[in-house]
Amino acid sequence: MDEFDIIRRLFAPLARAPGADGLRDDAAEIDLPDAGRLIATTDAIVEGVHFLTEDPIETVARKLVRVNVSDVLAKGAAPDAALLTLVWPEGRPVSELERFAAAFGEECDLWGVKLAGGDTTRTAGPMVLSLTLCGVCGDRGPVRRSGARPGDDVWVTGEIGDGWLGLQAARGSLAGVSEADARALADRYRTPQPPSRCVAEVVARFASASVDVSDGMIADAGHVAAASGVGIVLLAPEVPLSAPARAWAAAAGAEAEARLVQLVTGGDDYQTLFCAPRQARDAVAAVADAGGVKLRRIGSVTAGEGVEFQRADGGRIEIGAGAGGWRHRWS
Amino acid sequence: MDEFDIIRRLFAPLARAPGADGLRDDAAEIDLPDAGRLIATTDAIVEGVHFLTEDPIETVARKLVRVNVSDVLAKGAAPDAALLTLVWPEGRPVSELERFAAAFGEECDLWGVKLAGGDTTRTAGPMVLSLTLCGVCGDRGPVRRSGARPGDDVWVTGEIGDGWLGLQAARGSLAGVSEADARALADRYRTPQPPSRCVAEVVARFASASVDVSDGMIADAGHVAAASGVGIVLLAPEVPLSAPARAWAAAAGAEAEARLVQLVTGGDDYQTLFCAPRQARDAVAAVADAGGVKLRRIGSVTAGEGVEFQRADGGRIEIGAGAGGWRHRWS
Repeated sequence: MDEFDIIRRLFAPLARAPGADGLRDDAAEIDLPDAGRLIATTDAIVEGVHFLTEDPIETVARKLVRVNVSDVLAKGAAPDAALLTLVWPEGRPVSELERFAAAFGEECDLWGVKLAGGDTTRTAGPMVLSLTLCGVCGDRGPVRRSGARPGDDVWVTGEIGDGWLGLQAARGSLAGVSEADARALADRYRTPQPPSRCVAEVVARFASASVDVSDGMIADAGHVAAASGVGIVLLAPEVPLSAPARAWAAAAGAEAEARLVQLVTGGDDYQTLFCAPRQARDAVAAVADAGGVKLRRIGSVTAGEGVEFQRADGGRIEIGAGAGGWRHRWS
Repeated sequence: MDEFDIIRRLFAPLARAPGADGLRDDAAEIDLPDAGRLIATTDAIVEGVHFLTEDPIETVARKLVRVNVSDVLAKGAAPDAALLTLVWPEGRPVSELERFAAAFGEECDLWGVKLAGGDTTRTAGPMVLSLTLCGVCGDRGPVRRSGARPGDDVWVTGEIGDGWLGLQAARGSLAGVSEADARALADRYRTPQPPSRCVAEVVARFASASVDVSDGMIADAGHVAAASGVGIVLLAPEVPLSAPARAWAAAAGAEAEARLVQLVTGGDDYQTLFCAPRQARDAVAAVADAGGVKLRRIGSVTAGEGVEFQRADGGRIEIGAGAGGWRHRWS
């Protein structure tokens, strides 16, 4: 198969965007929303950096879609047209590419993503996948990181820390958890679980500020605090943890708090953290519940600055320097 | 510098799109055109595949922008918002990244590209750069590859073959040309020269079908013929060649025609080939001239099928099998 065959056979059948023109042209038309506004995001995943060489190719496809969907949902938008860049290692067989395309197509359908175009090429190096994903939001536009006001509640979707903990499990470097838990956690690392698509409605209707949790919950809350010019207090006992993560933290006894800090700074969560007025509290919970969005109120916005992570007794938990987010270092 | 520093210091100053929000958010807002329609394209370039490791980083930045600009112009659209994926090798110094960003910013300004967002990551492998470029076109929408009608003229911008010939020169495998010509050709490979931005107006107003010439002129004309259900006759003496390319072909004596075939099948041209009604011939030439678009009428559309490459005497020049385009092979 050459590049044209691959596009025609594997990807053209997935091109659901009306303006994709069967992936036969130099560019796709992007449908303008009848009402509302358009956003776009780009997230790339690289073999050996964002996924492991031995990860099943289906989970790689799912991760690519989900890390981008997570960004769009956090802005209160519905996923829409997408363009795929596929840089495929020379050594990988075409059968694996077929499996990639099948899983990618399923994911697109699951999240309402419509493939519109893209580019494919070979590489002698690691696999690189990049997706540009458009989203459609209401007339208010995307909900930014700025806009949080003192007194607002802080909410977070899903569970925090499984991405980071799952990476340790996938690497085989996680001790003290059952084999079943290690497997479940590794699955969570390989296939992130963003919130239900209905979170976009909750964010669009109620949020004063919103962020995708991918650098680590504390770091991402810090981005909101900085952009909004406010402080954020997050309550340690309210952090939503999966059963395996809870067990892993508890198993450390006196070190449980240090482990909790690792979970809230580890990153790779792909959840939504948002702020909303206190008066909207019941409505937020009701709309989230109706849409199947797992949501937890974990703190509040203050007139201060930065993020304070508090114990049940109000004591401050220290977040070590350098734990404020997952940063790729550049020499 | 970490990832955040790089975005803030090097790329945020380039973020000219109104919805870029200083590259601080998870997604950019894409401005909807007041009138007209929106298109998007994605082209990636990979170290060792689309550019050479030793190419100056400034020309790499220019090539990335230009290969995408070329796609948008060929559809009759004006380049607009863009999202950049930057996968940067661990061994390359930050000083080189600074030079990349500076050249990238200059190119964006030159072509009206407005950086809106992107993603940066490190890699242990070759550099991968991908750009998603939006374009704004009129109410007619993008000019597709389909739509050519028998009797239409066929036009092409710029010069054909310098990209392929320049690659041979850059590799040092081009014999029989002067040192100055070899240098000029290598420059053309490293920094493609798409047509003036005004070509978009010519295409939007007059073209029945249009394509970006990147796979090789014969192959891309073939895409138009297939999509339009027509034949295309291209006249060998009318193919626009640069002085170095003309000299290289002529130097082969009896083999000059075989060399011309290499030039029209080599690819990497980044010109626009379009069809337009014969009645519009003078208007096409006048509007192109006014906009500084170098344009040559090189053939015509017939009721047949496929592409025929003709000598001055009407004889058919054979294009060898496999020379019909630049195809990355997939095992």
